[in-house]
Amino acid sequence: MGKRILSGMRPTGSLHIGHLSVIQNWVRLQDEYNCFFTIVDWHALTTGYQDKLDMKNLIREIAVDWLSVGLDPVKSAIFVQSHVKEHAELHLLFSMFTPLSWLERVPTYKDQINQLAEDGKDLHTYGFLGYPLLQAADILLYKADAVPVGEDQIPHIELCREVGRRFNHLYGKLFPEPQALIGKIPLLPGVDGRKMSKSYNNAISLTASPEEINTRVKQMITDPQRIRKDDPGHPEVCIVHQFHKIYSPDVAGIEEECRQGKIGCVACKRYLAEVIENVLAPFRERRRLWEDRVDEVLEEGAAKARQAASETMREVRGLIGV
Amino acid sequence: MGKRILSGMRPTGSLHIGHLSVIQNWVRLQDEYNCFFTIVDWHALTTGYQDKLDMKNLIREIAVDWLSVGLDPVKSAIFVQSHVKEHAELHLLFSMFTPLSWLERVPTYKDQINQLAEDGKDLHTYGFLGYPLLQAADILLYKADAVPVGEDQIPHIELCREVGRRFNHLYGKLFPEPQALIGKIPLLPGVDGRKMSKSYNNAISLTASPEEINTRVKQMITDPQRIRKDDPGHPEVCIVHQFHKIYSPDVAGIEEECRQGKIGCVACKRYLAEVIENVLAPFRERRRLWEDRVDEVLEEGAAKARQAASETMREVRGLIGV
Repeated sequence: MGKRILSGMRPTGSLHIGHLSVIQNWVRLQDEYNCFFTIVDWHALTTGYQDKLDMKNLIREIAVDWLSVGLDPVKSAIFVQSHVKEHAELHLLFSMFTPLSWLERVPTYKDQINQLAEDGKDLHTYGFLGYPLLQAADILLYKADAVPVGEDQIPHIELCREVGRRFNHLYGKLFPEPQALIGKIPLLPGVDGRKMSKSYNNAISLTASPEEINTRVKQMITDPQRIRKDDPGHPEVCIVHQFHKIYSPDVAGIEEECRQGKIGCVACKRYLAEVIENVLAPFRERRRLWEDRVDEVLEEGAAKARQAASETMREVRGLIGV
Repeated sequence: MGKRILSGMRPTGSLHIGHLSVIQNWVRLQDEYNCFFTIVDWHALTTGYQDKLDMKNLIREIAVDWLSVGLDPVKSAIFVQSHVKEHAELHLLFSMFTPLSWLERVPTYKDQINQLAEDGKDLHTYGFLGYPLLQAADILLYKADAVPVGEDQIPHIELCREVGRRFNHLYGKLFPEPQALIGKIPLLPGVDGRKMSKSYNNAISLTASPEEINTRVKQMITDPQRIRKDDPGHPEVCIVHQFHKIYSPDVAGIEEECRQGKIGCVACKRYLAEVIENVLAPFRERRRLWEDRVDEVLEEGAAKARQAASETMREVRGLIGV
């Protein structure tokens, strides 16, 4: 059995180009690890229990995004958390021996409550306190060796390890200690320089058409000191350049031309739009193939996940004695 | 569809005669209601997660006890909580919208933590805080109309109703408001006058042989002012009499004879032992029939329960949108 990876995302609707590097990282990991990628709909409820979420569509959208970028249902298990009831069972069993204080002291806990209170959300709930424990169950259910996450998730992975250790101590060695795989994920800004987000209307969707890409790139804020196109530019303050750095084959050349005033912002943007179109076009193509098959993929993925999960649960029940 | 009842017990080993009236009450309810009787092994873990429980045997013992007293697997669903994963799923979904304060304010919460701390148990756990919510899931999963409980359980039933109301308010009307059926359950003391409990070694087991019954009845504390057998007795202070009041066909006659000094304590005890033997003998008889079939009964019960549970969960998921 190869080493295992578990990672997931909440179904918050179709993804944008800012998410791309995370998923492309997963795509690479598929060749090295036995991967479980899960759409965590139960987690979405911890903060969204009052929203009328169209979960079915949100799930389909994100799944098709994943597949179009290159997640491969033959290599990996791609599934919806709530389709594998063992997540709820393991979470419940973990709850029995997990001190309240471990959850109350998760660094982000109080911050998130306050932050979401500003959006009118009351998160003084039992489930919101417990969601890092649900995450621990998500990970340990598959005995994951590693979890690709952002830096903000490190405390959660630490809690997960603590929960696993406590289980091993109380009932017998079963769980590995999953490591956080901190990816160097470049953070792309939105076209207006703020955080890229669908709700800010400053994002390039993974499904953007060539026209939509053009429109968004034109909105990108450039060097404000550059008035005429042959003024020397300052790529370090230019949003367009941040995208070139990630997607353009010859960044050094473009940077040089910009600094010397040899390429104007209009031409530079036109070039970036082409580059982005070249990135997104194959996804759009594959997207069409997956749209009809996505339900099937998620069913097969759940079956794969369930098999691994039920093996773990058999061992868990045996050790606890239930 | 008839009205439904849900009730359960933790698998704490074979029962004693003090539990009998509760189960006999259930036996009667079977004719009037559609009954679900569950052995709540997950609940046993909330306080017993550190104990090495031989859960399999504990479950078998209590199930055979129930069956021998007259719970009928044809009329009722008799099952183990952990065999129906929907309990964990509904508990998790309820956790999303249940305020922490509702659980923190359950009247028994702090008392129980302190009480069990004296036994060296640390119950400052996430699961112990949440167990009334698990109970709410146990009940609402079957849309129970009524729950036969002792008075100490009333706050839990109230919490259950509140959780159901909050669900109905957030997502749409689904759950009934279960009523507590407070049985007038006579409280039997142990043979030494303390609470009857296996751990005090003062209990008459439901499986007691005639010899064991005799031994226990002989240990019962009688009126200390009665020195000679023709002294007038005071039944109100006599443990033996408390048992006569429940089990003897002619209590008034015995009381009369005791007060007049016409029956001595030895004879009175011999008579009680016979009466108890008459109560327990048919259970012992039926017990043998069930011992070979109990696994099958629990499997069939779980299948019945699962059918009802999965119907409710389909509706729950539909309303929440997961």
